[in-house]
Amino acid sequence: MDLQTYLKEQKARVDAALDRFLPPEQEEPRVLHQAMRYTLFAGGKRLRPILALAAFEAAGGTDDTRVMPLACSLELIHTFSLIHDDLPAMDDDDYRRGKPASHKVFGEGVAILAGDALFAAAFDVALQAPLPPEVLVRALRELTWASGPEGMIGGQVEDLEAEGQPPTAERVLRIHRKKTAALIASSLALGGIAAQAPEVEVQILKEAGLAMGLAFQIVDDVLDEVASEQDLGKKSHKDRARGKCTYPRVFGLERAREDARAYAQQAKEILQRAFGPKSLRLQQIADFIVERSY
Amino acid sequence: MDLQTYLKEQKARVDAALDRFLPPEQEEPRVLHQAMRYTLFAGGKRLRPILALAAFEAAGGTDDTRVMPLACSLELIHTFSLIHDDLPAMDDDDYRRGKPASHKVFGEGVAILAGDALFAAAFDVALQAPLPPEVLVRALRELTWASGPEGMIGGQVEDLEAEGQPPTAERVLRIHRKKTAALIASSLALGGIAAQAPEVEVQILKEAGLAMGLAFQIVDDVLDEVASEQDLGKKSHKDRARGKCTYPRVFGLERAREDARAYAQQAKEILQRAFGPKSLRLQQIADFIVERSY
Repeated sequence: MDLQTYLKEQKARVDAALDRFLPPEQEEPRVLHQAMRYTLFAGGKRLRPILALAAFEAAGGTDDTRVMPLACSLELIHTFSLIHDDLPAMDDDDYRRGKPASHKVFGEGVAILAGDALFAAAFDVALQAPLPPEVLVRALRELTWASGPEGMIGGQVEDLEAEGQPPTAERVLRIHRKKTAALIASSLALGGIAAQAPEVEVQILKEAGLAMGLAFQIVDDVLDEVASEQDLGKKSHKDRARGKCTYPRVFGLERAREDARAYAQQAKEILQRAFGPKSLRLQQIADFIVERSY
Repeated sequence: MDLQTYLKEQKARVDAALDRFLPPEQEEPRVLHQAMRYTLFAGGKRLRPILALAAFEAAGGTDDTRVMPLACSLELIHTFSLIHDDLPAMDDDDYRRGKPASHKVFGEGVAILAGDALFAAAFDVALQAPLPPEVLVRALRELTWASGPEGMIGGQVEDLEAEGQPPTAERVLRIHRKKTAALIASSLALGGIAAQAPEVEVQILKEAGLAMGLAFQIVDDVLDEVASEQDLGKKSHKDRARGKCTYPRVFGLERAREDARAYAQQAKEILQRAFGPKSLRLQQIADFIVERSY
């Protein structure tokens, strides 16, 4: 199966699982469930869940319905962060994935609570994974690390604080590592955890995931500089306008593209060395992440 | 030991544990850790953690350091909800526990993220409880239930949606049950879970906790009506001004006080029947909750 077909099929499976795990829109409080589903199903490649599924395979896992709830919880955490990130007090984005942002549709109060509820749902869904309790506990530790002050939320704060500050190499790498790469690193790690791979393999997956995550965020920065709003489904040049600390602002566009490629290459080499051909899908996805920018 | 001394000593123990579990202010991102600690240590009775400790005792638990991380996670979830609740898009409160609200000190963006980070920390801290993995998994299921759409966050949404709507008995009970009583119910349940009590006892604790939680919120509504701002450390008559769905607005002050007392009494009877004198502290706390209002 070629990569495009694989990505499409996995996305469909993840979407179906998300739909099953989330309360229906008709359930009270309706506006909350509507808001949760609105942003969750507004599009999105389901990159993080797909990475978890592919890492599960690379680590020798069979029957990936065992990792699916964890995969879904990654997307729930990601969507929670998007909703809060778009708020006027944060990045102040009116559009997300080509549609009005949550707070434009439901108001700020409900948008904040929908984000909160998606975060709660992430743990609720993760806890439904059919795994031995000690494996589940290990997986939840990974999720809290990836989302907390050392990961995504910490990165969002540093991103906010960095606005208007001089962009430096150290700062942009720290922000990207925490805000984006941590959750992507944990996506791969969770695949390994669910496959009950030895801890050393989980750490190798995480290391490869960190490199993939950096590649991903650098490409995102590049796209914000060069793509039109139609391509992105959100405002382009937004980062520049807000004085965000982005990779191209520090290193220039050319170097940014090169470094994204180098990080993807690094991820592939780590994976190939540790997992060989079982990691082919993950390696293809690493390539896919950087090809988006050309 | 009389109740006042007990409450004071348990609060000191909970505060010390919270201080140990949370990253220090000096750790990056500093502003996030400062904001997390600012509201967490701005005061507060630590009612939910103390209830968990007392329920642990009632359910026959020994060595309550085993339940302490879960007790702390309840306070982290409660504080997260306070920070988001005070935001301009929600209840728009400038003061909390007699001090400026988080968003007044740190700005809305950091306040939102500090709330998010406290929620993440709640799970992180809970996962540190020295309990068998299957008990930990059970405890986390309780926490996600209490905080999610069926519990606190769902209640916050319904509270927000009810503003300006005619207050009805059904609506006020549903909001109070979800927004406040669910987390208090789970505080007691977590004590039972950590004590590894049979599930039926956990459910009895939860039922008693639900009644205590309703008593607590009704008293809160009464205090908002009758207390001065100095007593409350936040604006009084705020609920009335915003057209909130409160118990006194539906039933009147007198009936509100009576019902709070009746719910507390109900909680005590449930506890006495199931746990006898081991539940004395819990029963005293049930009384304490309603005595606040006289």
